[in-house]
Amino acid sequence: MIKFYYASGSPWAWRVQMVLEEKGLPYEPKLLSFSAGDLKKPDYLAMNPHGKVPVLVDGEQALYESQAILEYLEEKYPAPALLPGEPAARARTRIEEIECTTYLNEAFRGLAQIAFFTPEDKRDAKTLAERREDVRAELLRLEARAAARGGDSIMGATLTRADTTWIPFVELAGRAGAALDAAGMPWLSAWQSRLRSRDSYQKSYPPHWRK
Amino acid sequence: MIKFYYASGSPWAWRVQMVLEEKGLPYEPKLLSFSAGDLKKPDYLAMNPHGKVPVLVDGEQALYESQAILEYLEEKYPAPALLPGEPAARARTRIEEIECTTYLNEAFRGLAQIAFFTPEDKRDAKTLAERREDVRAELLRLEARAAARGGDSIMGATLTRADTTWIPFVELAGRAGAALDAAGMPWLSAWQSRLRSRDSYQKSYPPHWRK
Repeated sequence: MIKFYYASGSPWAWRVQMVLEEKGLPYEPKLLSFSAGDLKKPDYLAMNPHGKVPVLVDGEQALYESQAILEYLEEKYPAPALLPGEPAARARTRIEEIECTTYLNEAFRGLAQIAFFTPEDKRDAKTLAERREDVRAELLRLEARAAARGGDSIMGATLTRADTTWIPFVELAGRAGAALDAAGMPWLSAWQSRLRSRDSYQKSYPPHWRK
Repeated sequence: MIKFYYASGSPWAWRVQMVLEEKGLPYEPKLLSFSAGDLKKPDYLAMNPHGKVPVLVDGEQALYESQAILEYLEEKYPAPALLPGEPAARARTRIEEIECTTYLNEAFRGLAQIAFFTPEDKRDAKTLAERREDVRAELLRLEARAAARGGDSIMGATLTRADTTWIPFVELAGRAGAALDAAGMPWLSAWQSRLRSRDSYQKSYPPHWRK
């Protein structure tokens, strides 16, 4: 059976777990702890030299890097498809993934540095507001693109990896004080509600966030 | 015909152009100038909102982000293949691409900040040496992986996107003072010589580097 190594709250792991769930694949979840140093232990570093999550073991070899894992899952377990069939449409879906994993992520990292990793009494309010605005700008760009496509999913009518990639980052940004704003982001707000009601979301929701 | 927008010396554009050449695809090269501000002009931003290279136009829609473009080219023009056929082997090749575009690139950006963007009289020699060592560490890791696979190409016997992705970054690192060292990196040094003799390398070599 597939072994899936993850840590609670990592959007990189979450985007893979949601795809495992959407595809209905049986897997053995292996929950690692950042604080216990699980990701830096020799056995884990032998699977991923960078000491990050996720890692997926399917057969003899450990695969790391969420994008490589997602392409693997799509090729090995094509149904249900989470990419369209036509090459240009697939490219546009991958571009939408990169909009999240590169550009939104860069803005999010700036925000997380203050909101998650700076003690409250050392946070500069103006900088914090600016970093939230950076994230908001990326979300507004997504709102515009998705609303223009006019479907229930980011790429249009059908759920794709664009959705399963964006939703963990959107939820994490919300916890860092850059929640979707229903007035300015009506399409995304409705999309978030739809995603939250999916089984794949519920089953991959970060366990420690429930506490 | 495919239109290919690039700028001389961008490893992101170079890795795509080398694939266009390896696949023998006819394309119209559109050389943009960083210094003339070509990447920030409205017509270009309409194709890529991030104002970066490369952009590929094949049919009606502009595609951006080199990884999405490379996946597109492999799907649309599968022969000659630049990925193996089997999903796990494809995943390992993509991981090797990410080793370059994420981890080597992060080290390279630190080096470039000093070597390319800091005036000579303001460079701190110790910091410069450290940044070069960061790049060297990533190259040594690649040396170990590729030598262990024991072929003429990074993934083994056959040329893949791992080679066409790494070689532009290796050449750029060399210009930033982190050249391959023949004694410590014998496999990579021989590989670099082989790559340099390929038509695809010669035809995609950054034009302004020849001056």
